[in-house]
Amino acid sequence: MRNILIIGAGKSISYLVKYFLEKSQQENLRLTIADKNLENAKILIKDATNVELLELDLFDETARHKAIENAAIVISMVPARFHIEIAKTCLSLQKNLITASYISDEMMSLDEEVKNKGLVFMNEIGLDPGIDHMSAMKIINEVRDQEGKMILFESFTGGLVAPESDNNLWNYKFTWNPRNVVLAGQGGAAKFIQEGSYKYIPYHKLFRRTEFLNIEGYGNFEGYANRDSLKYRSAYGLDNILTLYRGTLRRVGFSKAWNMFVQLGMTDDSYVIEDSENMSYRDFVNAFLPYSPSDSVELKLRHYLKIDQDDIMWDKLVELDIFNPDKKVNLIKATPAQILQKILQDSWSLSENDKDMIAMYHKFGYELNGVKHQIDANLVVIGDDKTYTAMSKTVGLPLGIATLQILNKKYTKPGVQMPLQKDIYLPVLKELEQYNIVFKEHQLPYQGYNPNNVAG
Amino acid sequence: MRNILIIGAGKSISYLVKYFLEKSQQENLRLTIADKNLENAKILIKDATNVELLELDLFDETARHKAIENAAIVISMVPARFHIEIAKTCLSLQKNLITASYISDEMMSLDEEVKNKGLVFMNEIGLDPGIDHMSAMKIINEVRDQEGKMILFESFTGGLVAPESDNNLWNYKFTWNPRNVVLAGQGGAAKFIQEGSYKYIPYHKLFRRTEFLNIEGYGNFEGYANRDSLKYRSAYGLDNILTLYRGTLRRVGFSKAWNMFVQLGMTDDSYVIEDSENMSYRDFVNAFLPYSPSDSVELKLRHYLKIDQDDIMWDKLVELDIFNPDKKVNLIKATPAQILQKILQDSWSLSENDKDMIAMYHKFGYELNGVKHQIDANLVVIGDDKTYTAMSKTVGLPLGIATLQILNKKYTKPGVQMPLQKDIYLPVLKELEQYNIVFKEHQLPYQGYNPNNVAG
Repeated sequence: MRNILIIGAGKSISYLVKYFLEKSQQENLRLTIADKNLENAKILIKDATNVELLELDLFDETARHKAIENAAIVISMVPARFHIEIAKTCLSLQKNLITASYISDEMMSLDEEVKNKGLVFMNEIGLDPGIDHMSAMKIINEVRDQEGKMILFESFTGGLVAPESDNNLWNYKFTWNPRNVVLAGQGGAAKFIQEGSYKYIPYHKLFRRTEFLNIEGYGNFEGYANRDSLKYRSAYGLDNILTLYRGTLRRVGFSKAWNMFVQLGMTDDSYVIEDSENMSYRDFVNAFLPYSPSDSVELKLRHYLKIDQDDIMWDKLVELDIFNPDKKVNLIKATPAQILQKILQDSWSLSENDKDMIAMYHKFGYELNGVKHQIDANLVVIGDDKTYTAMSKTVGLPLGIATLQILNKKYTKPGVQMPLQKDIYLPVLKELEQYNIVFKEHQLPYQGYNPNNVAG
Repeated sequence: MRNILIIGAGKSISYLVKYFLEKSQQENLRLTIADKNLENAKILIKDATNVELLELDLFDETARHKAIENAAIVISMVPARFHIEIAKTCLSLQKNLITASYISDEMMSLDEEVKNKGLVFMNEIGLDPGIDHMSAMKIINEVRDQEGKMILFESFTGGLVAPESDNNLWNYKFTWNPRNVVLAGQGGAAKFIQEGSYKYIPYHKLFRRTEFLNIEGYGNFEGYANRDSLKYRSAYGLDNILTLYRGTLRRVGFSKAWNMFVQLGMTDDSYVIEDSENMSYRDFVNAFLPYSPSDSVELKLRHYLKIDQDDIMWDKLVELDIFNPDKKVNLIKATPAQILQKILQDSWSLSENDKDMIAMYHKFGYELNGVKHQIDANLVVIGDDKTYTAMSKTVGLPLGIATLQILNKKYTKPGVQMPLQKDIYLPVLKELEQYNIVFKEHQLPYQGYNPNNVAG
């Protein structure tokens, strides 16, 4: 029996565990789930055999060493900043390692040693990053195999609420880490390239510069730019591409409404609001508005953000109960972002029977024999329920499949890496199809920003 | 003869030097001006006697030690971050020190030792900080001496162009460090308190939340909030004040127009623009606008910022020649803020005969025997010429006057401090009057944000 060690037993491991349990007989697997808190793991494994739950303090070096020593392969599902401890132990014990996280500089610094020992440290093999890399590289390489020249690549991903559970005016609920949603886009201008021109969007304009997309059967979406669309330009081999844009998907209208919070300053996480503990939701709103002895918070806000009487934006605010003078913030020394998150969680948390949805959309523009072409590819995954979410499925399955590929020595290229090689992405994408994770591809006439080569 | 040592011979020392030269006989002074570069000092001293120019590398400890050893008192006019080296040497040689800069944490950490040795390290005694502290404390203490209770303090300062030299649409020219003007307001939300309510303005709204002021004979001004209006709350003894607001003065309309740059993202100093070297001014503008193969940069900008055809804002942009496709940025690896600064310097630099202007405006609200009162105090100083600017006058004179007060042992309170004590601000303000630096005070009915105590 080969022992697979999963370190970290948070909500996101549900589908990963399910996958291994289903494969355990056929693949001769034993599964060890290690964490300080094993409550979630207990619920997930039910009465499965071939599973061990291991109480582990990640920072207890001896215990960590022992757990990894007994493993055939290790999957780290802890918060990204803690991977490095696990990676170093894997390196010293010569174990392969899989994570769904971005490769940190610290992780990358192990590359030479990992290569020297012939180990595979596969990262960024969840959803985003993960499925985005693999599905993009598949088509980019198909274009290249035909001697086509890539001229445009745009890619959007969003974690959303499923249509059947979409019952608020924002068409949005938190299906993942709410803090990341509140802070999205902060930390610097968004940068991308369109038809050869570099473009920069400051944070306070980000949610007003959206692009629109349609997914058949699911309606319209909008995308706002990620901070660094050029991050994978070289890794994907797109150094001379004219248009490169990566973004986040939301339902149409979300960004325009979210922009109200940005404009008010409510998403700021860099300072603490005075006496946040005793503030009402209404006081919180008022802290961002000019003082007036007589005008209402409502009118001041309408005037400040120029919201007309019949604008749906207003109803979106009211739906959040944000003008309530009796609801208290009840957070000590909280930043605006923390208070906003709390207010939103009142309204945007998934109910017991709610399902989530993952949507991904890629556009590939290329030139072949002097003619411009476009391929659009999209993916929609709906969650099964609150435990087996679309998010846990699209993160867990590629992780699980890649783990078995590596464990079974079907993929052996050593180094600290992400899944950009055919040898890994083709079998993973192939097996994902069995789980209904399939991109719909459409060939269409080129629709880039300048299809007719007009001089701009 | 008492030797006064000025370390740092930049543009701002002109009036300070003039003051000491005028006083040298009467006060039995010798002046030493020390810097690596003495070009400016040579021009200032002309053929004056009792002056020595000393070539000094601030970081040469031996040379610094020797220069300070020979001084009766030291004035540091170097960039604020370098004061600490001078301060430590002054401490070891038991010399008093004067600066016009904010007290840094490092400087403050010397306080106990400075006190133990009975030394005076007087800081923040230029214009802003400096004259603002002294003129405010004078009136605040007068209110207190009458048993009045302070309920409002607002204070605005601006370095502007004199009315006779005010010949552009922005009513603004650079009279001080242009980089500080471009970056003004960045680094976090502005925070202040109005009628007991804390208020927060994010950077991207800062220039749309101005207050208006009138100075008799000089017309209308506007003020935008400084980042931390509460900085001196305790130092001024205003811990329970209801309204505390500090801001920067501009001519009316400047902030609304400046906001165009903020909205576009042109004031960002946190990243480098691709290929900035070869960019035209027009390309720079276009980098912040959506791509279009056919629409002009002009129309895209008008649409993006919603500028009507007959809006003066447009003329303000055109005046800067910002749409010029032939003018090159010519800055390697430049940030947006650096490029914007260059573009503005083309238009906003002082001409040979231009004069600058300093304006300061304080509002004091207080309650006396149950009645609310207000005192407004304002100061306008016009520069003599390009060398003897209003800025160098309002920075140099208080420095010079305070230096003689301390040298003559008329002020002896030891410690690292700013001029909040009557013993220092009264004689300084008194002597400033001889140089026509006089506040006009007006007693008026209370006009705070809530004069009639309406519940808000």
